[in-house]
Amino acid sequence: MNESTTQPRIGIIGTGAIGGFYGLMLARAGYDVHFLLRSEFSAVSQNGLRLDSQVHGLLTLEHVQAYASAADMPPCDWLLVGAKTTGNDGVAPAIVQAAAPGANVLLLQNGLGVEDDLRGLLPDSLHLLGGLCFICVHRSGPGEIVHQAFGAVNIGYHSGPAEDASASLRRVEQGAALFHAAGIESVAMDNLDKARWQKLVWNVPYNGLSVLLKASTTPLMADPDSRELIQGLMAEVVQGAEACGHSLPPGYAQQLFSVTGQMPDYRPSMYHDYVEKRALELEAIYARPLAAALAAGCDMPKIRALYHALAFLDRSNR
Amino acid sequence: MNESTTQPRIGIIGTGAIGGFYGLMLARAGYDVHFLLRSEFSAVSQNGLRLDSQVHGLLTLEHVQAYASAADMPPCDWLLVGAKTTGNDGVAPAIVQAAAPGANVLLLQNGLGVEDDLRGLLPDSLHLLGGLCFICVHRSGPGEIVHQAFGAVNIGYHSGPAEDASASLRRVEQGAALFHAAGIESVAMDNLDKARWQKLVWNVPYNGLSVLLKASTTPLMADPDSRELIQGLMAEVVQGAEACGHSLPPGYAQQLFSVTGQMPDYRPSMYHDYVEKRALELEAIYARPLAAALAAGCDMPKIRALYHALAFLDRSNR
Repeated sequence: MNESTTQPRIGIIGTGAIGGFYGLMLARAGYDVHFLLRSEFSAVSQNGLRLDSQVHGLLTLEHVQAYASAADMPPCDWLLVGAKTTGNDGVAPAIVQAAAPGANVLLLQNGLGVEDDLRGLLPDSLHLLGGLCFICVHRSGPGEIVHQAFGAVNIGYHSGPAEDASASLRRVEQGAALFHAAGIESVAMDNLDKARWQKLVWNVPYNGLSVLLKASTTPLMADPDSRELIQGLMAEVVQGAEACGHSLPPGYAQQLFSVTGQMPDYRPSMYHDYVEKRALELEAIYARPLAAALAAGCDMPKIRALYHALAFLDRSNR
Repeated sequence: MNESTTQPRIGIIGTGAIGGFYGLMLARAGYDVHFLLRSEFSAVSQNGLRLDSQVHGLLTLEHVQAYASAADMPPCDWLLVGAKTTGNDGVAPAIVQAAAPGANVLLLQNGLGVEDDLRGLLPDSLHLLGGLCFICVHRSGPGEIVHQAFGAVNIGYHSGPAEDASASLRRVEQGAALFHAAGIESVAMDNLDKARWQKLVWNVPYNGLSVLLKASTTPLMADPDSRELIQGLMAEVVQGAEACGHSLPPGYAQQLFSVTGQMPDYRPSMYHDYVEKRALELEAIYARPLAAALAAGCDMPKIRALYHALAFLDRSNR
């Protein structure tokens, strides 16, 4: 636990399950972490953050540097964005307010092209990176997070002020080092677009089917028909990635499928979004990949069917 | 209304919405109609059948020739089978018991290959035909049927004792004439397999999506995503039919789509089956067409995804 003044200051934009988990872990590792909150500001200011982790045990952060407004935050060198992709337009001003000059903005979100949207809303002076979180985590109450398994973050560089490629890669490695210091696995990826496709191999089947079939991972992995459907959807993601120029590692889909069969029963974030009548992240996880693959000549018909079904449910739900 | 002794005697096997509607209409047209019932035997014996039709008005059949056992039925020249395809193994003995020598068995069911299964359970002396009902009808209570729209029956010949093709076609035309006499549209089809594929253009999207999205036709036709999904599924049925050697009339799918947008709000039979926790007719409406198309080199990926999703829901539901 070292806390020197040369360490980067970290801001968490959107302290839900993802932002809360990584922010708490980084703060407990000694980093100077500042949390932007909205509805949970009072609860977290008073009671702190509480993480019930099946991996790390019960961890708390009693004195949270919490803010209701980004204007009150000190300038942060790294901003970790854990908000939903459906709210990216709204978080851009907060990022700008909380960012130190030349700061690194790391989007801890799923889906494709999420940085492209946000880029136009940020000043050119900020570096933008994407992070793919392989983790089973959810909110259980105000300031309360349940962590069931995993935690790795794969990071890739998107865009920022001109610098050579090796400087960008070092920046990615600095990000990975932050997580390493907090005991979290993190891999620097040389291609963010490929990293995002890779993560879609999990999100496309499990997020959508959890809503469509009202089912968590255990029943989905126990039924022969949902298993075949999951594998069919995964195969289409791999084909889409290939069409877009990204050869995923051989056996990657099968490996994710097997791991999911062995992990604790899990409800993906989209399931919680649906139950709590929030907008589903359909644009980032479905519409963008469908459009990108189609532009590269690859139809993904099962994913398209799933997307339309989810869009109907999402519209009926709100 | 003529009731001569030369008229065929008609037996209804499975007096649900379909069997009840057509049986009542034929009885009111003067035919000698005998109804086999199970759970509704007492109610129908005592109170008769009641049809609330938005086309024909309120019609009743007060004195129903109702039977709890096929063994008690007189030998019938035509047997109209309105039972679910999921129960075909169980209805075969009833058909055999109620059939006059050389009788015509008309399966008023949806899906593909339903006659093939039943054929093996029937004596060679019986003629087997298939009927595709274009009708919006449902049970609203014991012996009570609501008819919202349409009613046409397309009939095709399947198999039976050796006779020349023109004799089989005359048999189909006799069947159509029964319905005509009751004021019901009926077309003699020269190819039953094609007629079944044609009907699937409607059943594949609407039956399945009514369960998957818990929605009747009006909301399904009002939403841009479900509209696109319906059209995508219809297009795959047309491709599957084509692969199996059946060119459907140009614009057929678009026509069914348009008609459905104009008809009264309707919940397909599969929706009622799901809500009442009955087995869904997935084998006849999805698995058989998928297998037939695949054997002909045609994948139908959206239909396959829908099928797997429905099979998961069906298994969870019972």
